[in-house]
Amino acid sequence: MKTRIEFDSIGSMNVPENAYYGVQSLRAKENFPITNRKLSKDFIVSLAEIKKAAAITNKNGGILKDSIADAIITACNEIINGKFRNEFVVDPIQGGAGTSSNMNANEVIANRAIELLGGTKGDYSIVHPNDHVNMAQSTNDVFPTAGKLTVLKLLPKCILELNQLNKALIQKSKEFDSIVKIGRTQLQDAVPIRLGQSFHAFSAVIQRDINRLNKVQNEMRSLNIGATAIGTSINASNFYICNITHTLQEVTNLKLNQSEDLIDATQNLDGFVTISATLKTCAINLSKISNDLRLLSSGPKTGLAEINLPSKQNGSSIMPGKINPVIPEVMSQVAFNIIGNDFTITMAAESGQLELNAFEPVLFYNLFESIETLTNAVKTLTDNCITGITANKDRCMELLDKSVCTATALCPHIGYKKSAEIAKTSLKTGESIRTIILKEKLLTESELDSILDYDSMTDPGIKMTSFAI
Amino acid sequence: MKTRIEFDSIGSMNVPENAYYGVQSLRAKENFPITNRKLSKDFIVSLAEIKKAAAITNKNGGILKDSIADAIITACNEIINGKFRNEFVVDPIQGGAGTSSNMNANEVIANRAIELLGGTKGDYSIVHPNDHVNMAQSTNDVFPTAGKLTVLKLLPKCILELNQLNKALIQKSKEFDSIVKIGRTQLQDAVPIRLGQSFHAFSAVIQRDINRLNKVQNEMRSLNIGATAIGTSINASNFYICNITHTLQEVTNLKLNQSEDLIDATQNLDGFVTISATLKTCAINLSKISNDLRLLSSGPKTGLAEINLPSKQNGSSIMPGKINPVIPEVMSQVAFNIIGNDFTITMAAESGQLELNAFEPVLFYNLFESIETLTNAVKTLTDNCITGITANKDRCMELLDKSVCTATALCPHIGYKKSAEIAKTSLKTGESIRTIILKEKLLTESELDSILDYDSMTDPGIKMTSFAI
Amino acid sequence: MKTRIEFDSIGSMNVPENAYYGVQSLRAKENFPITNRKLSKDFIVSLAEIKKAAAITNKNGGILKDSIADAIITACNEIINGKFRNEFVVDPIQGGAGTSSNMNANEVIANRAIELLGGTKGDYSIVHPNDHVNMAQSTNDVFPTAGKLTVLKLLPKCILELNQLNKALIQKSKEFDSIVKIGRTQLQDAVPIRLGQSFHAFSAVIQRDINRLNKVQNEMRSLNIGATAIGTSINASNFYICNITHTLQEVTNLKLNQSEDLIDATQNLDGFVTISATLKTCAINLSKISNDLRLLSSGPKTGLAEINLPSKQNGSSIMPGKINPVIPEVMSQVAFNIIGNDFTITMAAESGQLELNAFEPVLFYNLFESIETLTNAVKTLTDNCITGITANKDRCMELLDKSVCTATALCPHIGYKKSAEIAKTSLKTGESIRTIILKEKLLTESELDSILDYDSMTDPGIKMTSFAI
Amino acid sequence: MKTRIEFDSIGSMNVPENAYYGVQSLRAKENFPITNRKLSKDFIVSLAEIKKAAAITNKNGGILKDSIADAIITACNEIINGKFRNEFVVDPIQGGAGTSSNMNANEVIANRAIELLGGTKGDYSIVHPNDHVNMAQSTNDVFPTAGKLTVLKLLPKCILELNQLNKALIQKSKEFDSIVKIGRTQLQDAVPIRLGQSFHAFSAVIQRDINRLNKVQNEMRSLNIGATAIGTSINASNFYICNITHTLQEVTNLKLNQSEDLIDATQNLDGFVTISATLKTCAINLSKISNDLRLLSSGPKTGLAEINLPSKQNGSSIMPGKINPVIPEVMSQVAFNIIGNDFTITMAAESGQLELNAFEPVLFYNLFESIETLTNAVKTLTDNCITGITANKDRCMELLDKSVCTATALCPHIGYKKSAEIAKTSLKTGESIRTIILKEKLLTESELDSILDYDSMTDPGIKMTSFAI
Repeated sequence: MKTRIEFDSIGSMNVPENAYYGVQSLRAKENFPITNRKLSKDFIVSLAEIKKAAAITNKNGGILKDSIADAIITACNEIINGKFRNEFVVDPIQGGAGTSSNMNANEVIANRAIELLGGTKGDYSIVHPNDHVNMAQSTNDVFPTAGKLTVLKLLPKCILELNQLNKALIQKSKEFDSIVKIGRTQLQDAVPIRLGQSFHAFSAVIQRDINRLNKVQNEMRSLNIGATAIGTSINASNFYICNITHTLQEVTNLKLNQSEDLIDATQNLDGFVTISATLKTCAINLSKISNDLRLLSSGPKTGLAEINLPSKQNGSSIMPGKINPVIPEVMSQVAFNIIGNDFTITMAAESGQLELNAFEPVLFYNLFESIETLTNAVKTLTDNCITGITANKDRCMELLDKSVCTATALCPHIGYKKSAEIAKTSLKTGESIRTIILKEKLLTESELDSILDYDSMTDPGIKMTSFAI
Repeated sequence: MKTRIEFDSIGSMNVPENAYYGVQSLRAKENFPITNRKLSKDFIVSLAEIKKAAAITNKNGGILKDSIADAIITACNEIINGKFRNEFVVDPIQGGAGTSSNMNANEVIANRAIELLGGTKGDYSIVHPNDHVNMAQSTNDVFPTAGKLTVLKLLPKCILELNQLNKALIQKSKEFDSIVKIGRTQLQDAVPIRLGQSFHAFSAVIQRDINRLNKVQNEMRSLNIGATAIGTSINASNFYICNITHTLQEVTNLKLNQSEDLIDATQNLDGFVTISATLKTCAINLSKISNDLRLLSSGPKTGLAEINLPSKQNGSSIMPGKINPVIPEVMSQVAFNIIGNDFTITMAAESGQLELNAFEPVLFYNLFESIETLTNAVKTLTDNCITGITANKDRCMELLDKSVCTATALCPHIGYKKSAEIAKTSLKTGESIRTIILKEKLLTESELDSILDYDSMTDPGIKMTSFAI
Repeated sequence: MKTRIEFDSIGSMNVPENAYYGVQSLRAKENFPITNRKLSKDFIVSLAEIKKAAAITNKNGGILKDSIADAIITACNEIINGKFRNEFVVDPIQGGAGTSSNMNANEVIANRAIELLGGTKGDYSIVHPNDHVNMAQSTNDVFPTAGKLTVLKLLPKCILELNQLNKALIQKSKEFDSIVKIGRTQLQDAVPIRLGQSFHAFSAVIQRDINRLNKVQNEMRSLNIGATAIGTSINASNFYICNITHTLQEVTNLKLNQSEDLIDATQNLDGFVTISATLKTCAINLSKISNDLRLLSSGPKTGLAEINLPSKQNGSSIMPGKINPVIPEVMSQVAFNIIGNDFTITMAAESGQLELNAFEPVLFYNLFESIETLTNAVKTLTDNCITGITANKDRCMELLDKSVCTATALCPHIGYKKSAEIAKTSLKTGESIRTIILKEKLLTESELDSILDYDSMTDPGIKMTSFAI
Repeated sequence: MKTRIEFDSIGSMNVPENAYYGVQSLRAKENFPITNRKLSKDFIVSLAEIKKAAAITNKNGGILKDSIADAIITACNEIINGKFRNEFVVDPIQGGAGTSSNMNANEVIANRAIELLGGTKGDYSIVHPNDHVNMAQSTNDVFPTAGKLTVLKLLPKCILELNQLNKALIQKSKEFDSIVKIGRTQLQDAVPIRLGQSFHAFSAVIQRDINRLNKVQNEMRSLNIGATAIGTSINASNFYICNITHTLQEVTNLKLNQSEDLIDATQNLDGFVTISATLKTCAINLSKISNDLRLLSSGPKTGLAEINLPSKQNGSSIMPGKINPVIPEVMSQVAFNIIGNDFTITMAAESGQLELNAFEPVLFYNLFESIETLTNAVKTLTDNCITGITANKDRCMELLDKSVCTATALCPHIGYKKSAEIAKTSLKTGESIRTIILKEKLLTESELDSILDYDSMTDPGIKMTSFAI
């Protein structure tokens, strides 16, 4: 392989002649052979957008020569459009607070710009990674800003899938509205509920998650770009500081603003923690729903079997005919992973020191995975599970009738103590609650008809909006 | 000890004759000898407020006899005013989704009401724990509602302390505004910062925590009281369902509303998770600030020693004269505990099944501890540490002058590469950056005076509001 | 309240005249009003044992006057025997790496010794908390050593309860050995299992936990007492260093040894992390078993209902006759709490800096709670749940017969594909597997009798020890 | 793309004609588009080793035709040697307890075996994925067994790197043995220590981690292969059950044994939890060491600067000459990630139900990542950091001399109180401890020479083995 020699403060290295990355990327690659994974594609695009916005701003501010700025902008556009992905060679988990990622972008853009200007890769006298591409920037404002832009790209896709899920749940809640079944608390028979109500409750909690994600998303709009090294904006011109955020907004088409305290914004990662915590809360809810789906579809012959999940694949390599709730299972696993990621993010955020938190790389590695896997898992949950769920109406009624759940409805009429006695008798003898009540002449048949009506038991039938709070 | 005999569905037990609690509390006490701690006082008050609101509502709805209702209300008021604390004998970590706590309240109130009505404790024909005190309620709406009321009582105290902390930080940021010092990233010398700016950044992140806590607090206002067993409001009258939340609002003087989907509100604990996550984020920030205080005050002779924390106690049993940063240390420890609590809360919330989450007791145990210890730790942090911090101005300047941090400011003028060479030379030879520059005639003295000015390096001196976003 | 004035490096304070604690304890009490809980009793005893062993060693080494040593030893014995508990006034979560706890012990012992020697409390010229009681010690060796002694006291009680649980599980595995039932994977009907086998599996995993706890317990025997401030044993005599561990072993009657690298042993808390992690693993297993008990006993009419848990208390304040699995529920909650504690311990251990980890207090607070609540929860699980479990033999058989689990046993005879077809047909039509096979003449009746035998399906009937590994 | 049609219980799908995987793999790929990552290579090899051992055993047991068995064995050998990697198309996070991974292996092996026997891919009448490749197996024994084999492959590499690290630390402890410096507790000046002692303490804790990993590794040797679906060994012959583990041992060259309770071994994942917990403990220790290295090398001009880490890359894109502790930073990040992974593993293990834990895939995903990234990070820590560390001997002595740490050594001679006064005076006036003592005539010069000797302060100079325990 042909190589060129590049120099930095540490010394020199042989860089592949055709590589757009340079000595600093290569050094980082060798220092951090940790996960052998690539940087997130959206993150690379975000880096390029920042470099582009900086070049535009520096050009407009009269600090960066037009020809160099234009070459940088073109190079950035190419990256934004998907080129040069393989030139980003650094590991996502890296020391140095993201300097390696930033320099990887600086070097790729510089070398491509050099090429566009007719130069030879590595001839940084034409376009310099630090002086030109990184002009008025520091890793310490570029890297967290790129993280926020990435979240702002990933999160809407996730919210979109949650909305699809929500629609599917509401659809099922309508479809199952007339199916009465036993409600269970602590896995013990409780009182009647309609299956549609169960799905409406699923939908209600997911809607809350969507609302939360929509709100916390705004934490990502407040950027420290322009802060440079520690938030004091050293080496950035007034023009740049005042215009970079606005330009970046135009480049990305995202709503953005500049943090009021750039020093705070450079050293604290609490915004990301908040995003992760909100994803975690959503993951908890999705795992709980998945557990419920697995419980309700347990069987087919020896479980609850009140609903059927669509058959998506053979359930077993040894047990013929077995179908498993594989989609809810993968949803719960993704939830567990997101919860673990949240703890890594917690530790990374807590470990910041003085003017910087050097642990952003592992935070991003986990946060992006959380958003992306949540998005993917919710999509398969909606498409491959929720929309295909069917109900076993007869089974629901059969179980309900077997239970002594109606004893609860008797309490206001014959008291808790008497109701308890009758429930115990029924469980022991198998005689129905109704029979015992009639035999003991505690209530008349018509009274019982009105009290033991499943519909009224599941529907308070009231207007809750009848008073203002 | 004299006893009375009480009966329940399980059998009979000897209850101390003078006890206001009854057989069900006693049984729970024996079943759950877990932590040997008491229920939170605020939680007991919250239970009594709910029982009072229910009695008022049932009385107004014409379902509960006035005399019984009035006795219940009086008993509740006594508990609210601090009486009968020792009658709450159940362990805060308990099985049964809180039934034991609810029945403990029901029994104490019933027995006190019986007494008020001239009866003998244990004679539940006068006032019955279930039929009268618990009328139209279930543990499953009472317990989570009491949890939310408790958070609404505890959280404002916490926010108040955070506001005090914030004021102290802002005060210090003004006091230290003229003290220039070295900024450090990754614990390595970076570029100048003013000590006041560091404290302003601390204040900015705490302000964000306050804002978040104020917002998420509203998640606690949405109650499922009236939902009874599983959210279908079985056994509650229309009048009760429509009026209980409003009455409870009047009893507690807290802004409250009824959840739109009572089934969802009965089975999901995500609101509590959100509170805990926001506390966790705040804890992370407080621990980071505490770490910084410990770093900046390290010494007295061999550390950074840029600030002094007030001496609060002898630092060592063996090393005379040693003073340690004990207050930031306790703050970090409280933060770690809150982070651990958050994970317990996460697991508890994830484990809900179908119509109920039976794991609320351990969730509350941890959540209340998180809020209370955060409140206490922030108060000692403000009073015993922040307000007494002093700065070592000369030390700050001495260290700053020793550093080669000014090399960064040269980059826009002589380029990154040349600046790096000079920085390395200075570090190696001990010659100052200024001397080397002048020797190499790269810049004139007057240029250097303007470039290497610490004030301008720490203050971009711009109006950031010069454009609209 | 009458007071005496005491002085320390910080200044003076009024100490209650009768108090055995002194100025440093009081200062700590005011600095750390965090949890308002007391130090663990076993921890106080451990501190007194260390002080006693130190006094004996220093006396034998000829450095501490006999009269003072004897008074200190007597005071320590009194504390060991339960006296002066209320004199320990510092909060368990405290800054300063435990100095406050250590000084609290030093002051109480000094004042009691002064009293024994006929002096007045506070007259430290007679017995000095630092010079005499703390002689040759530092908080940094006393505090972690006391933590280890405490674990060595608490853990055997926990292991004892796990052994009791194990016995109960084995007893049940024998009792239920002949009850055949459906096995379930992923909550779906799988293949037959005997209920006794299920309980044997529970026992097997608990036995593994016991083995692990017995092993990791040894991590606690390696002490850094004698290390003094940072492990270099400064201010301790050779005689003391060589004899203190041995003396402490005699005082405590525990098997102990001195760490080979006292500097390492002073700064690293990984031994405690290992204990916590092993408790966490045990908690996971106990929670899984508890989940299974709740699943198997779900019902009584609409769940699996294969086993009955003993009725321990009314299950509901609203639903008469309802009995809930309250004991397994409390077990899982304790497990969640231990898991959260493990993460607090993780963060505390990770935060050590250089020669010391200042975060031991919060680590101990969580670790002691984990061990004690695990002990308590396992005891109630054994006594109030496992030993009273009964099986519903008929129900087990009824469900088993309903299932198509026998299809699996056909695979080796008619292939996976054909077996799957038959299983699907049976599920759809309700015809039994046997009937279909016979109708299709795939196997003869006698072949089916031998293949579809539940006993042989649940018992491979082999000697697994027939080959050596 | 040419395709073939394959059928399963769900229906039919078009499989690429050249694909070795089949319909079930394809279905799984579509059901679980979660991480878009591949199965671990070592895991694929482990699956092939199990399939090979099963074929050998079934052949020897006379149940599997020689020609089919031989074709299967050849196919497995090819996979073990690295072929067909791209045919493993399922996502590592998958529902179904690993059935998709197992069937992916079964299908690839079956189709390759069919090919070897002259058939056409997809013609499962020649070699059937379930009946032949999966003979006597279930996902539920194959998948966890493959997980254990994988850990047994990965862990020794990790231990090897830890041993290399340990050697490097011991080397440094010798190299730095004569360098006296200040010891610090709670970041405050304490008493003298030798730099070599610090590195020896690092080595001691790593050695303990190595010992723990070596021990817990044995948890992985106990396999449930032969358990089939739920541990009752249904569908496995006696010959197979008795011989499979032994054969697998020969195939893998790993020491293995059969679990005593196969039902337990099929449903419980505590062995994996123990591995993860031990990795977590190691990660904590490595992060603590990394923190220390960053503290000790902080500077170069305004920090502690007692040691220098080797310069591995430019530290900043904006600050010229800045070198950051990038290797310790990446080590801490990997530690945070492992700690988060441990929580995911905890939740997955806790969520097992009855006869199976369906959440193994996410557990393996995290566990394998933990081991591999720990291995990689430790290697870069050793090679790129530890071995190149140098000490600033003069700086160490300069700081030590500045401190008042010698006051501690005075305590046994003039008492704690007097020593504290002198330390405070020295700190205030800048006069040395020695000067003050002499001025106050508390000790003579020669007494001071002997007391204030740094060497004796850092070396108790005793034989600790002088008594037996």
